[in-house]
Amino acid sequence: MRNNTLMTDFYELTMAQTYFHDGKENEQVYFDLFFRKNPFDGGYTIAGGLDNIIQYIKNFKFTNKEIQFLRSLGNFCEEFLQYLKNLKFDGDIYAVPDGTPVFPNEPAVTIKANIIVASIIETALLTDFNHGSLVMTAAKRIVHAAKDKPVMEFGARRARGVESAIGASKYAYIAGCVGTSNTKAGMDYGVPLMGTMAHSLVTESKSEYDAFLSYAKANPNNAIFLVDTYDTLKSGIPNAIKVAKDFLIPNGYPFKGIRIDSGDLAYLSKMARKMLDDASFKDTKICISSDLDEYTITSLIEQGTPFDTIGAGNNIAAAKERVGGVYKLVAVEEDDQIVPRIKISNDAIKTINPGYKKVYRFYDKDTGYALGDVIALSDEIIDKEKYTLVHPEQKYKKQELSNYEVHELQVPIFKNGKQVYRQPNIHKRRDFSKEQFDTLYPEIQRVTNPHEYYVDLSEKLSSLKQELIEFYKVEEVDPPKVKVK
Amino acid sequence: MRNNTLMTDFYELTMAQTYFHDGKENEQVYFDLFFRKNPFDGGYTIAGGLDNIIQYIKNFKFTNKEIQFLRSLGNFCEEFLQYLKNLKFDGDIYAVPDGTPVFPNEPAVTIKANIIVASIIETALLTDFNHGSLVMTAAKRIVHAAKDKPVMEFGARRARGVESAIGASKYAYIAGCVGTSNTKAGMDYGVPLMGTMAHSLVTESKSEYDAFLSYAKANPNNAIFLVDTYDTLKSGIPNAIKVAKDFLIPNGYPFKGIRIDSGDLAYLSKMARKMLDDASFKDTKICISSDLDEYTITSLIEQGTPFDTIGAGNNIAAAKERVGGVYKLVAVEEDDQIVPRIKISNDAIKTINPGYKKVYRFYDKDTGYALGDVIALSDEIIDKEKYTLVHPEQKYKKQELSNYEVHELQVPIFKNGKQVYRQPNIHKRRDFSKEQFDTLYPEIQRVTNPHEYYVDLSEKLSSLKQELIEFYKVEEVDPPKVKVK
Repeated sequence: MRNNTLMTDFYELTMAQTYFHDGKENEQVYFDLFFRKNPFDGGYTIAGGLDNIIQYIKNFKFTNKEIQFLRSLGNFCEEFLQYLKNLKFDGDIYAVPDGTPVFPNEPAVTIKANIIVASIIETALLTDFNHGSLVMTAAKRIVHAAKDKPVMEFGARRARGVESAIGASKYAYIAGCVGTSNTKAGMDYGVPLMGTMAHSLVTESKSEYDAFLSYAKANPNNAIFLVDTYDTLKSGIPNAIKVAKDFLIPNGYPFKGIRIDSGDLAYLSKMARKMLDDASFKDTKICISSDLDEYTITSLIEQGTPFDTIGAGNNIAAAKERVGGVYKLVAVEEDDQIVPRIKISNDAIKTINPGYKKVYRFYDKDTGYALGDVIALSDEIIDKEKYTLVHPEQKYKKQELSNYEVHELQVPIFKNGKQVYRQPNIHKRRDFSKEQFDTLYPEIQRVTNPHEYYVDLSEKLSSLKQELIEFYKVEEVDPPKVKVK
Repeated sequence: MRNNTLMTDFYELTMAQTYFHDGKENEQVYFDLFFRKNPFDGGYTIAGGLDNIIQYIKNFKFTNKEIQFLRSLGNFCEEFLQYLKNLKFDGDIYAVPDGTPVFPNEPAVTIKANIIVASIIETALLTDFNHGSLVMTAAKRIVHAAKDKPVMEFGARRARGVESAIGASKYAYIAGCVGTSNTKAGMDYGVPLMGTMAHSLVTESKSEYDAFLSYAKANPNNAIFLVDTYDTLKSGIPNAIKVAKDFLIPNGYPFKGIRIDSGDLAYLSKMARKMLDDASFKDTKICISSDLDEYTITSLIEQGTPFDTIGAGNNIAAAKERVGGVYKLVAVEEDDQIVPRIKISNDAIKTINPGYKKVYRFYDKDTGYALGDVIALSDEIIDKEKYTLVHPEQKYKKQELSNYEVHELQVPIFKNGKQVYRQPNIHKRRDFSKEQFDTLYPEIQRVTNPHEYYVDLSEKLSSLKQELIEFYKVEEVDPPKVKVK
């Protein structure tokens, strides 16, 4: 295992030296990890990356190698370097489990730790969350668009490096893909492996027919022929049918399918279905691939394209998007009090929700649908019978809730530096992810122009935020101590 | 070092078993790695990822662990598994050095190897090239847009996982960034490290003034204050100036700069410059950051924004783009002849250039500018005095060249499995990258609507391609043997 402790922005270390210089190494602080906008202009984000966060925290250690390197830079005093040598993560981490739908401004991860370690871990936590959540969300959107048709993840070659690809294949499976082409992800994580042939098998061979026949002989139980190397309808499908009749069927093997990877997939699939049916291969499946995304898949389904499975890669493992998770200080402990902090901004959207907080989700008791979330201060008690969600900016927008169950979203992952949460295996996480997604109204799930999910601030949090904004607008004196631990 | 040999698409292995089954394990083949479109609708792509390709090839080995895993899947016969155990890369790899501008359809990497190993390495080579080239191109575009203003790469937190982030910081530096915030990239690759403070330093503190003062005391030679936590003009800059006057200047330390990370950067920078100048801090630099890309930077410069340095991350390490490199079989050796192969497609753009090829670049002897490239078959000799570039599709578009130097773009990286190319250190690669970029006409470099760089096929290659397209359109018999080794 590589020591990635120094995968931290350099400013975390210059700040850490500042805190150390001020004798603040035991100051306990609270940071929230959240994002401000769903990716893909979508209605939700699916949380991911927890495996890597846990791994990073467990392996967090400055060995001699890291210390020597930092010393060589000349920016750090020896006392601080000696301090880093013994630094470990001994705080608490709360996080929503992988696969949970989360929404803008909700703390997906909350960290309580001393200011130095809490600062240094920022970068890796963000990178892991942003990567995991991006791939999970991208995969979920495509799986959702495909309705009941299985989606295989094929994207390794377009991912951002080898390690990124392996992680992406795992995230894609948890988010609902049925398997991956990435053999290493199969070995490392038990993701089901899938794949048959590329164009090179055909171009290498004397003829397309020879290629299909050789493939079928070497892999008789996995006969899915790629039919678009020369001409899908005139050459590929006829040759596939011929090999099925000449070799597969006479020897008792199934003609499992064909894959179409270019051209007009709607037209070619319809023709392919007819050709296969006419040749009595009604059970032979049609797999489509070719830079497919949620929009094209939706359109192909609307056009009645008779495909059975989808291979998608680019738009999962290499989605042209970002999850913009940020990590903000929200409170500092002083004299046994948790004192909330705020960051205001010239950009209104960048003003954060202060304080040590919890997120609660309300579910309709009858339908199971998620009705909305509330972000509250950690010591608030949420009424189990009646609650009014109020839009955080447009206060006249209200939603009266009753007949609900309410659950806290985050679970404890580390307590006092000890891991207290074991992730379920990837198959269980995949089930959990599906269950959670199914609690969202179809209006939130919608690929295009979704309805905005309700995320409210509690009255108390809302007042605190306003108070702090006002406070920092006037003058700089001691911030108010509003919250008892 | 992790063994990533199995970072390969599963179909590479089912195809490999097919070749093995047919006794083709010694068949020598040629694959080209190329892409079909520049990312960002740009005029160029900067090649990257060679470090990782070299590493992958050197570590390529199926150990017992990989073999046992493959055996457990039940898809592979024991003879094939035993064969894999001894498989190593013993072929040739030619590639353009990191930092070379490359263009659509040019072979950036060419592989000659036996069909089995050449197939299995496909996925990792693509992943490494696609990632490296994406980050290099993204960084180059931003560095170019920034003109003489240095660009620091800050993108780790938005990258696709920790390893991806570390690689991206290295690529960004090679492409022209002056440094990175990623401490691990500094340790692993010697990329210069940069960074001072985040908003949390300010929100953690009793007041912005206290935060700046503490920071300055702990890091007196690196005083760049982040001024937008509460209010850039009313609070941040006045406090920075105050700390400079109260502590830095009296103690002989420089007031190096301020950083503005939100709001209207043009307006705030102009006001900041005035406030600093009025306080006699004319040498204090203004750093701007906040999701900056090549378009915003261009616009800020046009508006006369008085910034000195740029922090950019999202649009480098986490660019919303892809390099779509593909890896296609272009020739097979048969009876000591190199027989070209083609893949036609229902999508015209997906029809490949067949044969074992070389790429040559013509440079104007007087100006040094790159005039155009020609892709030729490997045994062609390019005239040193006169050459006519002909547009590959629109044959009436011609460009007569003379007074040029012509150079082959690829260099040998591996010969018979042995590494024959040592990469220069990252600083030399950075210089090389700049030199190469400077050979492109400004019309090609342009961020928006660039001119298309000339990439021609030689007469001989063009005829061969046409011949093969015609051939595969009619019937399937033995392909013509057109090329003697």
